[in-house]
Amino acid sequence: MANEFVSKAVIKRLPRYYRYLGELMNEGVEKISSAGLSEKMHVTASQIRQDLNNFGGFGQQRYGYNVKNLHNEIGLILGLDQPKNIIIAGAGNIGKALSKASDFSQHGFNILAFFDTDPAKIDPEKTIPVYDMSSIRDFTSKNKVDIGVIAVPGKYAFKTAHTFIECGIKAIWNFALVDLDPAVPKDVVIESVHLSESLMTLSYNIKASEEKK
Amino acid sequence: MANEFVSKAVIKRLPRYYRYLGELMNEGVEKISSAGLSEKMHVTASQIRQDLNNFGGFGQQRYGYNVKNLHNEIGLILGLDQPKNIIIAGAGNIGKALSKASDFSQHGFNILAFFDTDPAKIDPEKTIPVYDMSSIRDFTSKNKVDIGVIAVPGKYAFKTAHTFIECGIKAIWNFALVDLDPAVPKDVVIESVHLSESLMTLSYNIKASEEKK
Repeated sequence: MANEFVSKAVIKRLPRYYRYLGELMNEGVEKISSAGLSEKMHVTASQIRQDLNNFGGFGQQRYGYNVKNLHNEIGLILGLDQPKNIIIAGAGNIGKALSKASDFSQHGFNILAFFDTDPAKIDPEKTIPVYDMSSIRDFTSKNKVDIGVIAVPGKYAFKTAHTFIECGIKAIWNFALVDLDPAVPKDVVIESVHLSESLMTLSYNIKASEEKK
Repeated sequence: MANEFVSKAVIKRLPRYYRYLGELMNEGVEKISSAGLSEKMHVTASQIRQDLNNFGGFGQQRYGYNVKNLHNEIGLILGLDQPKNIIIAGAGNIGKALSKASDFSQHGFNILAFFDTDPAKIDPEKTIPVYDMSSIRDFTSKNKVDIGVIAVPGKYAFKTAHTFIECGIKAIWNFALVDLDPAVPKDVVIESVHLSESLMTLSYNIKASEEKK
Protein backbone atom coordinates (compact mmCIF):
# COMPACT_ATOMS: atom_id res chain seq x y z
CA MET A 1 0.00 0.00 0.00
CA ALA A 2 2.70 2.49 0.95
CA ASN A 3 4.62 3.94 -1.94
CA GLU A 4 8.16 5.04 -1.24
CA PHE A 5 8.04 7.70 -3.93
CA VAL A 6 5.20 9.59 -2.30
CA SER A 7 6.40 13.10 -1.39
CA LYS A 8 6.60 14.25 2.22
CA ALA A 9 4.10 17.00 1.44
CA VAL A 10 1.48 14.46 0.34
CA ILE A 11 2.11 12.31 3.42
CA LYS A 12 1.65 15.37 5.65
CA ARG A 13 -1.72 16.04 3.99
CA LEU A 14 -3.10 12.51 4.45
CA PRO A 15 -4.07 12.94 8.14
CA ARG A 16 -6.00 16.04 7.14
CA TYR A 17 -7.99 14.10 4.51
CA TYR A 18 -8.60 11.45 7.14
CA ARG A 19 -9.88 14.06 9.60
CA TYR A 20 -12.28 15.71 7.12
CA LEU A 21 -13.61 12.36 5.91
CA GLY A 22 -14.18 11.36 9.54
CA GLU A 23 -16.16 14.57 10.07
CA LEU A 24 -18.23 13.89 6.94
CA MET A 25 -18.96 10.37 8.19
CA ASN A 26 -20.10 11.80 11.53
CA GLU A 27 -22.40 14.15 9.62
CA GLY A 28 -23.91 11.14 7.80
CA VAL A 29 -22.50 12.09 4.38
CA GLU A 30 -22.08 8.97 2.24
CA LYS A 31 -20.48 10.31 -0.88
CA ILE A 32 -18.70 13.45 -1.97
CA SER A 33 -17.28 14.78 -5.24
CA SER A 34 -13.69 15.96 -5.40
CA ALA A 35 -15.18 19.46 -5.92
CA GLY A 36 -17.23 19.09 -2.72
CA LEU A 37 -14.25 17.84 -0.74
CA SER A 38 -12.17 20.64 -2.27
CA GLU A 39 -14.60 23.30 -1.07
CA LYS A 40 -14.70 21.83 2.43
CA MET A 41 -10.93 21.49 2.74
CA HIS A 42 -9.91 24.68 0.91
CA VAL A 43 -7.56 22.89 -1.48
CA THR A 44 -8.10 22.51 -5.22
CA ALA A 45 -9.98 19.48 -6.56
CA SER A 46 -7.01 18.78 -8.78
CA GLN A 47 -4.70 18.61 -5.76
CA ILE A 48 -7.02 16.13 -4.08
CA ARG A 49 -7.10 13.93 -7.19
CA GLN A 50 -3.33 14.12 -7.57
CA ASP A 51 -2.73 13.33 -3.90
CA LEU A 52 -5.05 10.34 -3.88
CA ASN A 53 -3.71 9.07 -7.22
CA ASN A 54 -0.45 8.33 -5.39
CA PHE A 55 -2.32 5.48 -3.75
CA GLY A 56 -4.43 4.32 -6.66
CA GLY A 57 -7.17 6.93 -6.86
CA PHE A 58 -10.30 5.62 -5.08
CA GLY A 59 -12.71 7.93 -6.92
CA GLN A 60 -15.31 6.76 -9.39
CA GLN A 61 -16.14 8.88 -12.43
CA ARG A 62 -19.42 10.76 -11.92
CA TYR A 63 -19.96 9.16 -8.52
CA GLY A 64 -17.14 10.86 -6.64
CA TYR A 65 -15.76 9.38 -3.44
CA ASN A 66 -17.51 6.97 -1.09
CA VAL A 67 -16.75 8.73 2.20
CA LYS A 68 -16.61 5.66 4.45
CA ASN A 69 -14.48 3.65 2.01
CA LEU A 70 -12.05 6.50 1.42
CA HIS A 71 -11.78 7.17 5.17
CA ASN A 72 -11.05 3.51 5.70
CA GLU A 73 -8.50 3.35 2.85
CA ILE A 74 -6.62 6.40 4.11
CA GLY A 75 -6.66 4.89 7.60
CA LEU A 76 -5.01 1.77 6.12
CA ILE A 77 -2.44 3.89 4.27
CA LEU A 78 -1.65 5.65 7.55
CA GLY A 79 -1.31 2.28 9.29
CA LEU A 80 -4.11 3.13 11.73
CA ASP A 81 -5.49 -0.44 11.47
CA GLN A 82 -2.45 -1.52 13.52
CA PRO A 83 -2.73 -0.28 17.11
CA LYS A 84 0.53 1.20 18.36
CA ASN A 85 1.96 1.07 21.86
CA ILE A 86 3.75 4.17 23.06
CA ILE A 87 6.09 4.96 25.93
CA ILE A 88 7.10 8.49 26.89
CA ALA A 89 10.53 9.45 28.21
CA GLY A 90 9.99 12.47 30.43
CA ALA A 91 6.97 12.87 32.73
CA GLY A 92 6.97 16.66 32.52
CA ASN A 93 4.33 18.98 31.08
CA ILE A 94 4.72 17.97 27.44
CA GLY A 95 4.53 14.28 28.34
CA LYS A 96 1.47 14.86 30.51
CA ALA A 97 -0.22 16.92 27.80
CA LEU A 98 0.31 14.09 25.30
CA SER A 99 -1.05 11.50 27.72
CA LYS A 100 -4.25 13.51 28.09
CA ALA A 101 -4.93 13.97 24.38
CA SER A 102 -8.06 11.87 23.97
CA ASP A 103 -7.83 11.65 20.19
CA PHE A 104 -4.66 9.53 20.24
CA SER A 105 -6.34 6.48 21.77
CA GLN A 106 -9.30 6.88 19.37
CA HIS A 107 -6.86 6.22 16.54
CA GLY A 108 -5.22 3.21 18.19
CA PHE A 109 -2.28 4.96 19.86
CA ASN A 110 -2.01 3.62 23.41
CA ILE A 111 0.32 5.23 25.91
CA LEU A 112 1.58 2.44 28.18
CA ALA A 113 3.96 4.23 30.52
CA PHE A 114 6.22 7.17 31.31
CA PHE A 115 9.89 6.86 32.19
CA ASP A 116 11.69 9.53 34.16
CA THR A 117 14.89 9.97 36.17
CA ASP A 118 13.35 12.25 38.80
CA PRO A 119 12.43 10.09 41.87
CA ALA A 120 9.70 12.62 42.77
CA LYS A 121 7.85 11.85 39.53
CA ILE A 122 8.00 8.07 39.72
CA ASP A 123 4.65 6.49 40.52
CA PRO A 124 3.93 2.99 39.23
CA GLU A 125 0.38 3.15 40.65
CA LYS A 126 -0.89 5.86 38.29
CA THR A 127 -3.34 5.11 35.46
CA ILE A 128 -0.40 5.63 33.14
CA PRO A 129 2.43 4.49 35.41
CA VAL A 130 5.64 6.50 35.74
CA TYR A 131 8.66 4.19 36.05
CA ASP A 132 12.32 4.85 36.70
CA MET A 133 14.26 5.31 33.46
CA SER A 134 16.55 2.46 34.52
CA SER A 135 13.70 -0.06 34.17
CA ILE A 136 13.03 0.74 30.50
CA ARG A 137 14.89 -2.34 29.14
CA ASP A 138 12.99 -4.62 31.46
CA PHE A 139 9.71 -3.00 30.39
CA THR A 140 10.36 -3.20 26.66
CA SER A 141 11.44 -6.85 26.94
CA LYS A 142 8.01 -7.67 28.40
CA ASN A 143 5.83 -5.26 26.36
CA LYS A 144 5.64 -4.58 22.66
CA VAL A 145 6.51 -0.89 22.21
CA ASP A 146 6.11 0.67 18.77
CA ILE A 147 6.84 4.33 19.46
CA GLY A 148 9.12 6.06 21.94
CA VAL A 149 8.40 9.70 22.71
CA ILE A 150 11.25 12.02 23.64
CA ALA A 151 9.86 14.61 26.02
CA VAL A 152 13.07 15.18 27.96
CA PRO A 153 15.29 18.30 27.89
CA GLY A 154 17.35 18.66 24.72
CA LYS A 155 20.65 17.71 26.35
CA TYR A 156 19.31 14.23 27.15
CA ALA A 157 17.63 13.66 23.79
CA PHE A 158 20.40 11.73 22.01
CA LYS A 159 21.02 9.48 25.02
CA THR A 160 17.28 8.76 25.26
CA ALA A 161 17.06 8.03 21.52
CA HIS A 162 19.93 5.54 21.81
CA THR A 163 18.26 3.85 24.78
CA PHE A 164 15.04 3.51 22.77
CA ILE A 165 16.96 2.01 19.86
CA GLU A 166 18.84 -0.43 22.09
CA CYS A 167 15.44 -1.52 23.39
CA GLY A 168 14.36 -2.31 19.82
CA ILE A 169 12.06 0.68 19.35
CA LYS A 170 11.90 1.58 15.65
CA ALA A 171 9.95 4.85 15.77
CA ILE A 172 10.65 8.01 17.74
CA TRP A 173 8.36 11.01 18.23
CA ASN A 174 10.77 13.75 19.23
CA PHE A 175 9.84 16.95 21.10
CA ALA A 176 13.42 17.98 21.93
CA LEU A 177 14.97 20.75 19.84
CA VAL A 178 17.61 18.53 18.24
CA ASP A 179 17.82 16.74 14.88
CA LEU A 180 18.00 13.04 15.63
CA ASP A 181 17.76 11.76 12.04
CA PRO A 182 21.49 11.76 11.23
CA ALA A 183 22.25 9.97 14.51
CA VAL A 184 19.97 6.95 14.16
CA PRO A 185 20.07 3.80 11.97
CA LYS A 186 18.17 4.03 8.68
CA ASP A 187 15.43 1.64 9.82
CA VAL A 188 14.44 3.96 12.69
CA VAL A 189 11.85 6.56 11.76
CA ILE A 190 11.75 9.97 13.41
CA GLU A 191 9.02 12.57 13.53
CA SER A 192 9.92 15.79 15.30
CA VAL A 193 7.79 18.56 16.74
CA HIS A 194 10.01 21.60 17.22
CA LEU A 195 7.78 24.05 19.04
CA SER A 196 10.13 27.02 19.21
CA GLU A 197 10.75 26.73 15.46
CA SER A 198 7.00 26.74 14.84
CA LEU A 199 6.83 29.94 16.91
CA MET A 200 9.67 31.47 14.86
CA THR A 201 7.79 30.63 11.64
CA LEU A 202 4.81 32.48 13.08
CA SER A 203 7.10 35.42 13.90
CA TYR A 204 8.34 35.45 10.28
CA ASN A 205 4.76 35.51 9.02
CA ILE A 206 3.83 38.35 11.38
CA LYS A 207 6.67 40.40 9.92
CA ALA A 208 5.77 39.45 6.33
CA SER A 209 2.11 40.34 6.94
CA GLU A 210 3.03 43.73 8.43
CA GLU A 211 5.29 44.54 5.49
CA LYS A 212 2.50 43.83 3.01
CA LYS A 213 0.38 46.65 4.40
CA MET B 1 13.55 42.25 4.30
CA ALA B 2 10.74 39.71 4.01
CA ASN B 3 9.97 38.52 0.54
CA GLU B 4 6.44 37.40 -0.18
CA PHE B 5 7.56 34.96 -2.85
CA VAL B 6 9.67 32.90 -0.47
CA SER B 7 8.29 29.35 -0.34
CA LYS B 8 6.83 27.91 2.85
CA ALA B 9 9.49 25.20 2.79
CA VAL B 10 12.28 27.78 2.90
CA ILE B 11 10.56 29.67 5.72
CA LYS B 12 10.24 26.43 7.71
CA ARG B 13 13.99 25.86 7.32
CA LEU B 14 15.07 29.33 8.52
CA PRO B 15 14.67 28.57 12.26
CA ARG B 16 16.88 25.53 11.77
CA TYR B 17 19.63 27.66 10.19
CA TYR B 18 19.23 30.07 13.07
CA ARG B 19 19.60 27.25 15.61
CA TYR B 20 22.74 25.78 14.01
CA LEU B 21 24.36 29.18 13.63
CA GLY B 22 23.59 29.87 17.30
CA GLU B 23 25.31 26.60 18.23
CA LEU B 24 28.34 27.50 16.10
CA MET B 25 28.53 30.90 17.83
CA ASN B 26 28.44 29.17 21.22
CA GLU B 27 31.30 26.95 20.06
CA GLY B 28 33.31 30.06 19.15
CA VAL B 29 33.21 29.43 15.39
CA GLU B 30 33.54 32.73 13.51
CA LYS B 31 33.18 31.68 9.90
CA ILE B 32 31.95 28.66 8.01
CA SER B 33 31.82 27.64 4.36
CA SER B 34 28.54 26.53 2.83
CA ALA B 35 30.17 23.07 2.59
CA GLY B 36 30.93 23.13 6.31
CA LEU B 37 27.42 24.27 7.21
CA SER B 38 26.07 21.65 4.81
CA GLU B 39 27.95 18.85 6.58
CA LYS B 40 26.77 20.02 9.98
CA MET B 41 23.13 20.40 8.96
CA HIS B 42 22.88 17.39 6.64
CA VAL B 43 21.51 19.40 3.73
CA THR B 44 23.33 20.09 0.47
CA ALA B 45 25.52 23.18 0.15
CA SER B 46 23.53 24.12 -2.93
CA GLN B 47 20.29 24.07 -0.93
CA ILE B 48 21.82 26.36 1.68
CA ARG B 49 22.98 28.81 -1.00
CA GLN B 50 19.58 28.70 -2.71
CA ASP B 51 17.69 29.19 0.56
CA LEU B 52 19.82 32.15 1.62
CA ASN B 53 19.73 33.70 -1.84
CA ASN B 54 16.03 34.34 -1.24
CA PHE B 55 17.14 37.01 1.18
CA GLY B 56 20.14 38.36 -0.67
CA GLY B 57 22.80 35.71 -0.08
CA PHE B 58 25.09 36.85 2.78
CA GLY B 59 28.02 34.65 1.72
CA GLN B 60 31.32 36.00 0.43
CA GLN B 61 33.19 34.14 -2.29
CA ARG B 62 36.12 32.17 -0.79
CA TYR B 63 35.38 33.46 2.71
CA GLY B 64 32.12 31.65 3.32
CA TYR B 65 29.67 32.90 5.94
CA ASN B 66 30.43 35.06 8.95
CA VAL B 67 28.58 33.05 11.61
CA LYS B 68 27.60 35.92 13.89
CA ASN B 69 26.44 38.17 11.04
CA LEU B 70 24.42 35.41 9.38
CA HIS B 71 22.84 34.45 12.72
CA ASN B 72 21.91 38.06 13.26
CA GLU B 73 20.55 38.49 9.71
CA ILE B 74 18.38 35.37 9.96
CA GLY B 75 17.15 36.58 13.34
CA LEU B 76 16.09 39.84 11.65
CA ILE B 77 14.37 37.93 8.83
CA LEU B 78 12.49 35.91 11.47
CA GLY B 79 11.51 39.13 13.23
CA LEU B 80 13.29 38.05 16.44
CA ASP B 81 14.60 41.58 16.98
CA GLN B 82 11.03 42.56 17.89
CA PRO B 83 10.04 41.03 21.25
CA LYS B 84 6.56 39.48 21.12
CA ASN B 85 3.99 39.36 23.88
CA ILE B 86 1.93 36.19 24.10
CA ILE B 87 -1.26 35.21 25.88
CA ILE B 88 -2.49 31.62 26.13
CA ALA B 89 -6.15 30.63 26.07
CA GLY B 90 -6.39 27.41 28.07
CA ALA B 91 -4.36 26.78 31.24
CA GLY B 92 -4.24 23.01 30.73
CA ASN B 93 -1.23 20.79 30.14
CA ILE B 94 -0.33 22.10 26.70
CA GLY B 95 -0.52 25.70 27.90
CA LYS B 96 1.58 24.90 30.95
CA ALA B 97 4.15 23.04 28.86
CA LEU B 98 4.50 26.08 26.60
CA SER B 99 4.86 28.45 29.54
CA LYS B 100 7.76 26.36 30.86
CA ALA B 101 9.72 26.20 27.60
CA SER B 102 12.76 28.27 28.52
CA ASP B 103 13.90 28.80 24.94
CA PHE B 104 10.88 30.96 24.03
CA SER B 105 11.86 33.84 26.30
CA GLN B 106 15.48 33.59 25.09
CA HIS B 107 14.21 34.52 21.64
CA GLY B 108 12.04 37.39 22.85
CA PHE B 109 8.71 35.58 23.20
CA ASN B 110 7.19 36.62 26.51
CA ILE B 111 4.14 34.85 27.89
CA LEU B 112 2.11 37.45 29.76
CA ALA B 113 -0.92 35.53 30.97
CA PHE B 114 -3.26 32.56 30.67
CA PHE B 115 -7.01 32.86 30.20
CA ASP B 116 -9.36 30.05 31.18
CA THR B 117 -13.04 29.49 31.86
CA ASP B 118 -12.50 26.98 34.69
CA PRO B 119 -12.76 28.86 38.03
CA ALA B 120 -10.50 26.22 39.64
CA LYS B 121 -7.64 27.22 37.35
CA ILE B 122 -7.90 30.98 37.78
CA ASP B 123 -5.07 32.43 39.85
CA PRO B 124 -4.00 36.03 39.18
CA GLU B 125 -1.19 35.69 41.75
CA LYS B 126 0.88 33.15 39.79
CA THR B 127 4.17 34.11 38.10
CA ILE B 128 2.25 33.83 34.85
CA PRO B 129 -1.22 34.83 36.04
CA VAL B 130 -4.31 32.86 35.05
CA TYR B 131 -7.27 35.17 34.46
CA ASP B 132 -10.91 34.50 33.72
CA MET B 133 -11.58 34.35 29.98
CA SER B 134 -14.14 37.15 30.39
CA SER B 135 -11.37 39.62 31.28
CA ILE B 136 -9.44 39.14 28.03
CA ARG B 137 -10.73 42.34 26.36
CA ASP B 138 -9.81 44.39 29.38
CA PHE B 139 -6.33 42.82 29.42
CA THR B 140 -5.64 43.35 25.72
CA SER B 141 -6.79 46.97 25.91
CA LYS B 142 -4.11 47.60 28.56
CA ASN B 143 -1.32 45.36 27.22
CA LYS B 144 0.18 44.98 23.77
CA VAL B 145 -0.43 41.36 22.75
CA ASP B 146 1.19 40.08 19.56
CA ILE B 147 0.32 36.39 19.65
CA GLY B 148 -2.67 34.49 21.00
CA VAL B 149 -2.21 30.79 21.67
CA ILE B 150 -5.18 28.45 21.34
CA ALA B 151 -4.66 25.64 23.83
CA VAL B 152 -8.35 24.97 24.45
CA PRO B 153 -10.35 21.88 23.35
CA GLY B 154 -11.15 21.83 19.62
CA LYS B 155 -14.83 22.69 20.05
CA TYR B 156 -13.90 26.07 21.58
CA ALA B 157 -11.16 26.88 19.07
CA PHE B 158 -13.15 29.00 16.60
CA LYS B 159 -14.81 31.00 19.37
CA THR B 160 -11.43 31.64 20.97
CA ALA B 161 -9.91 32.68 17.63
CA HIS B 162 -12.74 35.19 17.10
CA THR B 163 -12.25 36.59 20.59
CA PHE B 164 -8.53 37.05 19.88
CA ILE B 165 -9.31 38.80 16.61
CA GLU B 166 -11.91 41.10 18.24
CA CYS B 167 -9.19 42.02 20.73
CA GLY B 168 -6.94 43.09 17.84
CA ILE B 169 -4.57 40.12 17.98
CA LYS B 170 -3.09 39.51 14.52
CA ALA B 171 -1.27 36.22 15.06
CA ILE B 172 -2.57 32.91 16.38
CA TRP B 173 -0.57 29.86 17.40
CA ASN B 174 -3.13 27.08 17.27
CA PHE B 175 -2.88 23.73 19.05
CA ALA B 176 -6.50 22.67 18.48
CA LEU B 177 -7.17 20.10 15.75
CA VAL B 178 -9.10 22.49 13.50
CA ASP B 179 -8.13 24.56 10.45
CA LEU B 180 -8.62 28.18 11.39
CA ASP B 181 -7.13 29.76 8.25
CA PRO B 182 -10.32 29.89 6.17
CA ALA B 183 -12.23 31.41 9.09
CA VAL B 184 -10.04 34.42 9.82
CA PRO B 185 -9.40 37.73 8.01
CA LYS B 186 -6.46 37.75 5.61
CA ASP B 187 -4.33 39.99 7.83
CA VAL B 188 -4.40 37.44 10.67
CA VAL B 189 -1.60 34.87 10.52
CA ILE B 190 -2.05 31.35 11.81
CA GLU B 191 0.51 28.70 12.67
CA SER B 192 -0.91 25.36 13.72
CA VAL B 193 0.60 22.44 15.59
CA HIS B 194 -1.59 19.41 14.99
CA LEU B 195 -0.10 16.79 17.27
CA SER B 196 -2.31 13.85 16.35
CA GLU B 197 -1.58 14.46 12.66
CA SER B 198 2.15 14.44 13.41
CA LEU B 199 1.61 11.09 15.14
CA MET B 200 -0.27 9.76 12.09
CA THR B 201 2.60 10.84 9.83
CA LEU B 202 4.92 8.83 12.08
CA SER B 203 2.53 5.88 11.79
CA TYR B 204 2.65 6.15 7.98
CA ASN B 205 6.44 6.16 8.06
CA ILE B 206 6.53 3.11 10.37
CA LYS B 207 4.42 1.23 7.83
CA ALA B 208 6.52 2.46 4.88
CA SER B 209 9.74 1.48 6.68
CA GLU B 210 8.42 -2.02 7.45
CA GLU B 211 7.35 -2.55 3.85
CA LYS B 212 10.85 -1.69 2.59
CA LYS B 213 12.40 -4.67 4.41
